[in-house]
Amino acid sequence: MTVLEMQGAAAKKAAQAMALAGTETKNKALLAIADALIARQDEWLSANAEDYEAAKAGGMNASMLDRLKLTKERVEGVAEGVRQAAALPDPIGKVTKTIDRPNGIHIEQRRVPLGVIGMIFEARPNVAVDAAVLCLKAGNACILRGGKESIRSNMCAEAIMRGALESVGLPADAVSLVHDTSRESAKELMHLEKYIDVLIPRGGAGLIRSVTKEASVPTIRTGEGICHVYVDSEADLPMAAKIVWNAKTQRPSVCNAVECVVLHKSIAEAFFNEALPLLDEKNVEIRADAKICNILGTRAKEASDEDWDTEYNDYILAAKTVTSPQEAIDFINAHGTQHSECIVTENAETAALFLNSVDAAAVYWNASTRFTDGFEFGLGAEIGISTQKLHARGPMGLEELTSWKYVVCGEGQIR
Amino acid sequence: MTVLEMQGAAAKKAAQAMALAGTETKNKALLAIADALIARQDEWLSANAEDYEAAKAGGMNASMLDRLKLTKERVEGVAEGVRQAAALPDPIGKVTKTIDRPNGIHIEQRRVPLGVIGMIFEARPNVAVDAAVLCLKAGNACILRGGKESIRSNMCAEAIMRGALESVGLPADAVSLVHDTSRESAKELMHLEKYIDVLIPRGGAGLIRSVTKEASVPTIRTGEGICHVYVDSEADLPMAAKIVWNAKTQRPSVCNAVECVVLHKSIAEAFFNEALPLLDEKNVEIRADAKICNILGTRAKEASDEDWDTEYNDYILAAKTVTSPQEAIDFINAHGTQHSECIVTENAETAALFLNSVDAAAVYWNASTRFTDGFEFGLGAEIGISTQKLHARGPMGLEELTSWKYVVCGEGQIR
Repeated sequence: MTVLEMQGAAAKKAAQAMALAGTETKNKALLAIADALIARQDEWLSANAEDYEAAKAGGMNASMLDRLKLTKERVEGVAEGVRQAAALPDPIGKVTKTIDRPNGIHIEQRRVPLGVIGMIFEARPNVAVDAAVLCLKAGNACILRGGKESIRSNMCAEAIMRGALESVGLPADAVSLVHDTSRESAKELMHLEKYIDVLIPRGGAGLIRSVTKEASVPTIRTGEGICHVYVDSEADLPMAAKIVWNAKTQRPSVCNAVECVVLHKSIAEAFFNEALPLLDEKNVEIRADAKICNILGTRAKEASDEDWDTEYNDYILAAKTVTSPQEAIDFINAHGTQHSECIVTENAETAALFLNSVDAAAVYWNASTRFTDGFEFGLGAEIGISTQKLHARGPMGLEELTSWKYVVCGEGQIR
Repeated sequence: MTVLEMQGAAAKKAAQAMALAGTETKNKALLAIADALIARQDEWLSANAEDYEAAKAGGMNASMLDRLKLTKERVEGVAEGVRQAAALPDPIGKVTKTIDRPNGIHIEQRRVPLGVIGMIFEARPNVAVDAAVLCLKAGNACILRGGKESIRSNMCAEAIMRGALESVGLPADAVSLVHDTSRESAKELMHLEKYIDVLIPRGGAGLIRSVTKEASVPTIRTGEGICHVYVDSEADLPMAAKIVWNAKTQRPSVCNAVECVVLHKSIAEAFFNEALPLLDEKNVEIRADAKICNILGTRAKEASDEDWDTEYNDYILAAKTVTSPQEAIDFINAHGTQHSECIVTENAETAALFLNSVDAAAVYWNASTRFTDGFEFGLGAEIGISTQKLHARGPMGLEELTSWKYVVCGEGQIR
């Protein structure tokens, strides 16, 4: 057995205990983790300081360094998030369907944990804790695999969480970290289907694509977001301008930010009259088709073909005209990433056509795409936003970290 | 673009039309398919006769030849199955969750089709039709990839189904067959995530494992079944014998048949007193641990380690003793395939421990594992039995061929 196989087998064993643990025990474990994070924060902060110095010496850029850095306030925020997870309802054990058959067998479909969840993530050290506690709350064990930049922080978080689990009588192996941060270990993890039930990559598009391509363990694809707002000929234009401005500039680095505005040609000029003053506030660069370049002159750059398929994550907005709602729908289905797509219109029929025809996890009518988020949807938690159609779609809360089993009771029935 | 990419793009376009098709149109399409199968049966039968002759000349064995063969009766059975699918309730469009947020946005989670479903299957020509019509009923397009043995039959079924789709105004491309039956085409299909939303392999364990290993398209693992019956010290032994006999011999070639009986040592001898007369009827071979070999003498062979991990699909039964229910649970979790697992006991507490602790799609108390089946569960259809925990677990009906989207309506809300 390799090191990782041993870790997988231990996690699988721990998952059996977690599946049987009651809500109270799981909540006690989460509160013990929150307390331990505060009590042992000096350890975590000093491990993180070492990571930080090493990354800085290695030439990491300022924004990445900021993501890597833990502070007393950030630790308190993480601990508070753990307490909130403890307060959420337990999804496990719920009977989701009941079937009584003519032959007398009684069938219940019951919610059960997924088992062992593998989380692959990049630099932020808080993800190790945020992700692990949601897995635990839903009765799972998890194997964490962070980047080498945060290995010291993550090893410390691992020790804190394992200690807290043991303190309430749960197996420490319900949480473990892959200590080997080489590419080989990541690759091995992606093929550990004997022990891992699902792999969830969290991070940039490159990471997610490579995991989805490589893994034989079932994977949930999260995150990539080329989102559009279509402004219809019958839109309320001040509303449209406000929605585009918000979806583009409120937090451009996230996946539910808008990357491209699609405009009915009849309102393109009027739309920009409303929107430009707002977009100017943040100096949003506009990359547009010829028609819009004609309207905007030097305020816009001409878009290349590549622009229609780019997630900028920046103060850049692509802009394109269409001659009908159907053309907008076809364009979005061809260039979107099935994340979040919006129509602004006062015409309910056009809205219905758009909402039914656009293939995305979340489709919006007259609201900002920025609402695609577990907390904004009221799930009370979020492990990521799924852009695939199997198992989970859109914001993933605790329910998406569960599966089900059929429990069949009889009195000796045979076929 | 390759041939397969063109086929994928056409299927994706057709999927958009299928997603918008109403229940009535979809049902008309299914009834048109059923009628056309009957009206054009001579074509289908003669294409099948060619397949049959070629396979026979190529040395295919008798049981495989029987699977390949279509008859007038079999065609009528397939057409009848299509009519039954038309009569099932349409899963699409149902609102499965409603969320109203304090900011006034209204969120509905609505059931939508998966999109494009790829089906990879082996020799039986009826699968092409059975699988396609369930995909269509759930609003999907599908790409079928059968074995080379049934290529003529499948091409004919493809032509019949495409003609019927067009006759009701739906796109023919909602059903298409991969005509190239080489390994390369199968491999390309497994990486066509740009156009295919999910891949469902149906066939032997070898096929399913190779697809799950290779595919970057999300896959649903079906079929492999090493199922156990645990007979507890407090079992009703005549009931236990009847269940084991039924689960082993009623149809040994299927995945929900039992492969191994696990016996509490205190009742091992008494169990066989009840069970042997039944098992003898079919000359069931017994491969057992030393304790059982001691009891049964020459009636049993000594099991090798491999026996505990073998799906016989034959009149062979592995048999093993344990000293406690927990040992049975651990053995089953180590050697099962998470398909169907049964305990026979009169003790409700022991039953609950087993049902909660055994990790399988279906867990049984005092009933035969043979009930794990879409029709036996009352789903009215079955596309396969999933042994994974993501998206689908256990018998898959129409609902498992769907996903959902969030539809968010606002009045200009922003964050």
